[in-house]
Amino acid sequence: MNIIINPSKSKWDSLTQRPYTENNSVVDSVKEIFKNVQKNGDKSLIDYTLKFDNVKIDKLKVSENLINDSDDKISSNLKKAIDLAYNNIYKFHSSQLQKKNIIEVQKGINCWQEKRPINNVGLYIPGGSAPLFSTVLMLGIPSLIANCSNRILCTPPNFKNEIAPEILYACKVCGIHNIFKVGGAQAIAAMTFGTESIPKIDKIFGPGNQYVTEAKKYSMNYGLSIDMPAGPSELLVLADDSANPKYVASDLLSQAEHGIDSQVILVSNSKALIDEVSKEIKIQKKDLSRKEIITKSLENSKSILFDSIDDSIDFINEYAPEHYIINTSNEEYCISKLSNAGSVFIGNFTPESAGDYASGTNHTLPTNGYAKQYSGVNTDSFLKTISFQKISKSGLISISNAIETMALSEGLDAHKQAVSIRINEN
Amino acid sequence: MNIIINPSKSKWDSLTQRPYTENNSVVDSVKEIFKNVQKNGDKSLIDYTLKFDNVKIDKLKVSENLINDSDDKISSNLKKAIDLAYNNIYKFHSSQLQKKNIIEVQKGINCWQEKRPINNVGLYIPGGSAPLFSTVLMLGIPSLIANCSNRILCTPPNFKNEIAPEILYACKVCGIHNIFKVGGAQAIAAMTFGTESIPKIDKIFGPGNQYVTEAKKYSMNYGLSIDMPAGPSELLVLADDSANPKYVASDLLSQAEHGIDSQVILVSNSKALIDEVSKEIKIQKKDLSRKEIITKSLENSKSILFDSIDDSIDFINEYAPEHYIINTSNEEYCISKLSNAGSVFIGNFTPESAGDYASGTNHTLPTNGYAKQYSGVNTDSFLKTISFQKISKSGLISISNAIETMALSEGLDAHKQAVSIRINEN
Repeated sequence: MNIIINPSKSKWDSLTQRPYTENNSVVDSVKEIFKNVQKNGDKSLIDYTLKFDNVKIDKLKVSENLINDSDDKISSNLKKAIDLAYNNIYKFHSSQLQKKNIIEVQKGINCWQEKRPINNVGLYIPGGSAPLFSTVLMLGIPSLIANCSNRILCTPPNFKNEIAPEILYACKVCGIHNIFKVGGAQAIAAMTFGTESIPKIDKIFGPGNQYVTEAKKYSMNYGLSIDMPAGPSELLVLADDSANPKYVASDLLSQAEHGIDSQVILVSNSKALIDEVSKEIKIQKKDLSRKEIITKSLENSKSILFDSIDDSIDFINEYAPEHYIINTSNEEYCISKLSNAGSVFIGNFTPESAGDYASGTNHTLPTNGYAKQYSGVNTDSFLKTISFQKISKSGLISISNAIETMALSEGLDAHKQAVSIRINEN
Repeated sequence: MNIIINPSKSKWDSLTQRPYTENNSVVDSVKEIFKNVQKNGDKSLIDYTLKFDNVKIDKLKVSENLINDSDDKISSNLKKAIDLAYNNIYKFHSSQLQKKNIIEVQKGINCWQEKRPINNVGLYIPGGSAPLFSTVLMLGIPSLIANCSNRILCTPPNFKNEIAPEILYACKVCGIHNIFKVGGAQAIAAMTFGTESIPKIDKIFGPGNQYVTEAKKYSMNYGLSIDMPAGPSELLVLADDSANPKYVASDLLSQAEHGIDSQVILVSNSKALIDEVSKEIKIQKKDLSRKEIITKSLENSKSILFDSIDDSIDFINEYAPEHYIINTSNEEYCISKLSNAGSVFIGNFTPESAGDYASGTNHTLPTNGYAKQYSGVNTDSFLKTISFQKISKSGLISISNAIETMALSEGLDAHKQAVSIRINEN
């Protein structure tokens, strides 16, 4: 990791850049895939799966039997782990539901908001070397709590033409029964238009490679919405001499193993800590199975020394990290000054991997600086807010002059008339 | 208005279509404008304003004096109206703020969410025949309550090279001091990239014509977010024989006057009511100043008779109206079955124009069926949710097996190590 000392503000712009680069050929492929899926439906999904995943599927939908039998195919220790994670995620995400709160704005004028489920949601789970069943929990549980009536899940088959039993078991505990064996931009296109097997949905959730990310963005042209734009995962650790360099190194390594485009940043006021962490990274890396990925992603990564804590905090707000570990003696101060982050981990015993799996918080979070304006996935992501109002005749009379005056000033006399006709009649 | 009787479900798709059509030339113009503004900054904004608004501006920023003097340029009755609306909108939107709620998920594992302001927000107010100062309140008040630190507002100058004093007064009461005299796609591009005068922002709010709408969508390619995709305004009224046909007609007319692409729909179980409303529309229309616009937008509009209330409700959920008036004797039932709407107005004395101006709810709402998955603007629109967690050593031990097992099953052993190293050390 590069060490940068007290960088001036003029350098922050380049220091907060992510390693990600856009690829125009991805956009073109996605457009082509959307066109084909819109026209040819299921057939095109089967063709693309052969082409991209090297697997010939005949049925897209996973049978209910396979979902039910998933219990028998995973270890009881893993089942116990998933069940514990489920309970914690369920508890935290159900605490996010809000009660209706009727406000009598003026006498006779009652206004309130109610949250109702987004009924048709699509959950995307990427393939890859290992099955990401934890993301099934992170999307499946809040959509269950929100009570979305139609939930479908798309994920590519592995090389044996199967969906891993870990994923099926996670779907089962979340009550997801509509699982489709298709991945990539073609899965996103299928959820956008609907096919013979896959229903059209209204909002798409979940991570993916750059094709999936681009496809999610492209689906918005057809009236869908998405959880958030996605980019490679990232972690920023703020640590001072009160932090244990072994723990800090282990957190940086856990983030760096995600992929070669992951980014980890250490911010500290202690050169000694930065040096210790650097040594620890070398020691701990040796035994890790993904050390080649780690070595590459550490090339994108930096240690930054700021003498001033306020400069550190300003820089971190400008960076807007997806994951942010605060491991300092003045944690309360750092929390109070925080503007932008996806998920925050506080103290020596709160590793990022706790939140990735089992503490209860969600791990689907804004990357690439989007924490400035996007929230991570939570129960609200599966709900929309509807406003309601009910006004009595006397309530309407009390605001009638205001409405009529404003409507006329905006040149909208039919708006005025809708009030006048009600209050002038006996 | 066309009358349609008990349409079968196969016809609902076409009945829920909006009159809107996409225009490719708009997309091309927007791309060109973005390129130019990115390259030439303020100069291009001045050029476009001359070209599109026929006005030669020299300074983009409105002076503080003009904002301060706006009081003297509008009637005291209008000021009183704006002040009343301000108070009601402020009261309802501040009731939407939520307290932090720390959840002890398991002993020693504390998780919570906090909402923090989106700091850099841009508010867009369209020009046109009359100044839309009410929208200033609808965006200015929740952004004030959310405590967004940098708020800017863009709106095109009128033919006299001025911003209407009504708009400046509304900005003043909302505490908005950075007002820029520029409209259209060029204003959106300016907020996307920043120029010499206009700061770059993170999220754009507000309505506009199809150029502005397309530009907002396009700004997302450069990392911005937007309140919601926008389309022409619309109203659906559900009414039975308990409704007053005069009132229903006045509501339909108030919506129809917005523009020739507005859409109004009446759903009822009573042919008598539909006929009465139809008669009333003709009578009330006569004296309205925008009757030509109304005549055209009524061509896009329909009365639909359903014998069954459940069919009515299913159809309305499929349509997902921006504004929805429930004027029936069984309003509780209709509310309980509602899935999709932007803002709901209940009973005989709750005209849509109350919510447009002064009852306290927001009038920036999802159109074009987007109420299925988008909320209208509210205080939350100017905030993002950050999750926090703090775990004790014993808390971490209690979930360590779950994290370690899940991490290994996903092939991520550095994630496991971040836990092991903490709990195995003495």
